[in-house]
Amino acid sequence: MDLVIAKKDLLRLVDRCQGVADKKSAMPVLANVLLAADGNALRVAATDLYLAVSGQTAAEIVSAGSVAVPAKDLLDRVKAMPDGPIQVTAREGAQTVIKAVGSPRRYTLHGMPGSEFPALPKAAPDAPSLELPVELLSRLIERTHFSISTDETRAHVNSALFEWAGHRVRMVTTDGHRLSKMEVTLEGTSATATMLIPLKAIHELRRLTSGVDKETPTVHITQSGPNAFFGVGGMTFSVKLVDAQFPPYQQVIPNVSDRSIRAPRGPLAEALRAVSLAASDRTGGVKLTVTQRALRITSESPESGNGFDEVPIDYEGGEVTIGFNAKYFLDVLAGINDDEVVLGVSGELDPAVIRPATESAAESYVSVIMPMRI
Amino acid sequence: MDLVIAKKDLLRLVDRCQGVADKKSAMPVLANVLLAADGNALRVAATDLYLAVSGQTAAEIVSAGSVAVPAKDLLDRVKAMPDGPIQVTAREGAQTVIKAVGSPRRYTLHGMPGSEFPALPKAAPDAPSLELPVELLSRLIERTHFSISTDETRAHVNSALFEWAGHRVRMVTTDGHRLSKMEVTLEGTSATATMLIPLKAIHELRRLTSGVDKETPTVHITQSGPNAFFGVGGMTFSVKLVDAQFPPYQQVIPNVSDRSIRAPRGPLAEALRAVSLAASDRTGGVKLTVTQRALRITSESPESGNGFDEVPIDYEGGEVTIGFNAKYFLDVLAGINDDEVVLGVSGELDPAVIRPATESAAESYVSVIMPMRI
Repeated sequence: MDLVIAKKDLLRLVDRCQGVADKKSAMPVLANVLLAADGNALRVAATDLYLAVSGQTAAEIVSAGSVAVPAKDLLDRVKAMPDGPIQVTAREGAQTVIKAVGSPRRYTLHGMPGSEFPALPKAAPDAPSLELPVELLSRLIERTHFSISTDETRAHVNSALFEWAGHRVRMVTTDGHRLSKMEVTLEGTSATATMLIPLKAIHELRRLTSGVDKETPTVHITQSGPNAFFGVGGMTFSVKLVDAQFPPYQQVIPNVSDRSIRAPRGPLAEALRAVSLAASDRTGGVKLTVTQRALRITSESPESGNGFDEVPIDYEGGEVTIGFNAKYFLDVLAGINDDEVVLGVSGELDPAVIRPATESAAESYVSVIMPMRI
Repeated sequence: MDLVIAKKDLLRLVDRCQGVADKKSAMPVLANVLLAADGNALRVAATDLYLAVSGQTAAEIVSAGSVAVPAKDLLDRVKAMPDGPIQVTAREGAQTVIKAVGSPRRYTLHGMPGSEFPALPKAAPDAPSLELPVELLSRLIERTHFSISTDETRAHVNSALFEWAGHRVRMVTTDGHRLSKMEVTLEGTSATATMLIPLKAIHELRRLTSGVDKETPTVHITQSGPNAFFGVGGMTFSVKLVDAQFPPYQQVIPNVSDRSIRAPRGPLAEALRAVSLAASDRTGGVKLTVTQRALRITSESPESGNGFDEVPIDYEGGEVTIGFNAKYFLDVLAGINDDEVVLGVSGELDPAVIRPATESAAESYVSVIMPMRI
């Protein structure tokens, strides 16, 4: 294999792939990225056997071939190259030389033959698929990813529920203490699909969708066999879906709350952050009291003393105090763009509900947070 | 104690002090900073019994008194305050309330009575002293601190030699693998002092001198008994000096080198950084070959392959190859401002010498790096 490629093109592909390469696998080849040169393009790919990512870009191919080289080492070395063209040459025994054209800087890496790299899954041509604005997938993830359970022994909640039916596209996540749901109406879709996307894949999709430039506005999503495929910005990302049953989330979301309070998002987040400084390290718990003139936030901890703050609100109704993990609130508030949020609160042992103050029929978002006794 | 103080003034003092407070000491009071209100000023202080720092600033003292409060907790809470005046009140039992004036935000901290805080050392009025531009002390530290030994069992090199005699002020550090020496001529000084300043104190002095604004151009240094005192920007920093003998450093610095090579500082640093990517993690070793047209830098590692780069130089003489820890070179190059450096190289087992290309009689800097076999 021998080729010349622009540094920025190679860097972009290797950077996207290296998060998926598995440095700790018992299969050493999985710590590598595949470089495959053919025709007039270089394809770069990585997989951990559950996730796979690949992409290709134009390159001047002097001789075709493939090689697998350590992902992290390759990324570091491509970054260290001067801007401009880079020559990549794989020799006998998978020795790979990366050299800056017109500069003496070069590296040799110990690779493995490209033939030892596992084949990546492919979508069936007739599988159901969906076109989604990248910005929308990115927002679905931003507003829900934080409430995915990190408990790997509970696969059904260690993942995000992503489904579409008719015109409705939805992402739901829960870790048992909180739940987030975002739903949008998308004209022109009709297929139906339900998938459970594991947490690691959500992290990678977040990277992939947040870094895409404005010229590639849509992501092409396909469900095929046990896998889902996401095509975005010239990259294809595939994930082996979780084969489990997501909890019946509709039962968790209260239909109505006794008290509905409009609060300014920024000041509320700032007050929660300030008071949570003084919360117990172990629980992170703060108390929220709804009064006629203010949301009062307090914390008490034997080690770090007390914290107190208030946010003015316009509310007429009875007083109630509920205990929460402040971080759960802050995660939700950080994902919302509106200046105001609506807080739904019932009794001190009932879940609280947060929504953006302005909602359209085309888009709805809700987050449910279970109270804690403090 | 009851006082009102501007957030920015309190923040500056607490921030300067908290690095010295000792969170892990068997004496709980040392994890605190002392707040002492008297007359029309608040004094803030911290000590670990080896280092001490204190400073004062104008405040509106409603009632005098003192209290010691956890350093890190106080810093976090003052940071979280809105800009403007802050009221600090210590109650019975050292309960301390920090409240934003005109805002509901407030914290209570569990403090200790100010009387339990240890007394800080004081300089004798007749002790020898020196005025130094802050910028100069900062530069003495920047150019030498990295070669202080981190081995705490070897107190004589786990510190910086700082001395002045007549018009000459000098800082020297070594860890056995490298040595850095900076010397300046300062008109108007005449006293003589030699001190060994321990590494932790150098770190704090670095913080202290780098953050000082332009309006406080000098640092007042006094050696008194076992301590040295540094007065800068309204803060006094004292350190218990190391009572040991610094190695006879003059013997380590080669008087002449067989080869003297001018090299561009930026490109040399960039090439060393790039090639050291591929150096063995264990040794960090790279090879430097001096040829008639270039400095050639190479590395070889069984795990991460080879690296190669060259920097053009103007040199006529014999070729020689020496092995070095790349980090030692990079530390030195980062501290020098000149566009060019002069490299002094003799045989492959002789120490190398680095100096800035332009030097004045008033200021000299030299760094010596021992070779390694690779």
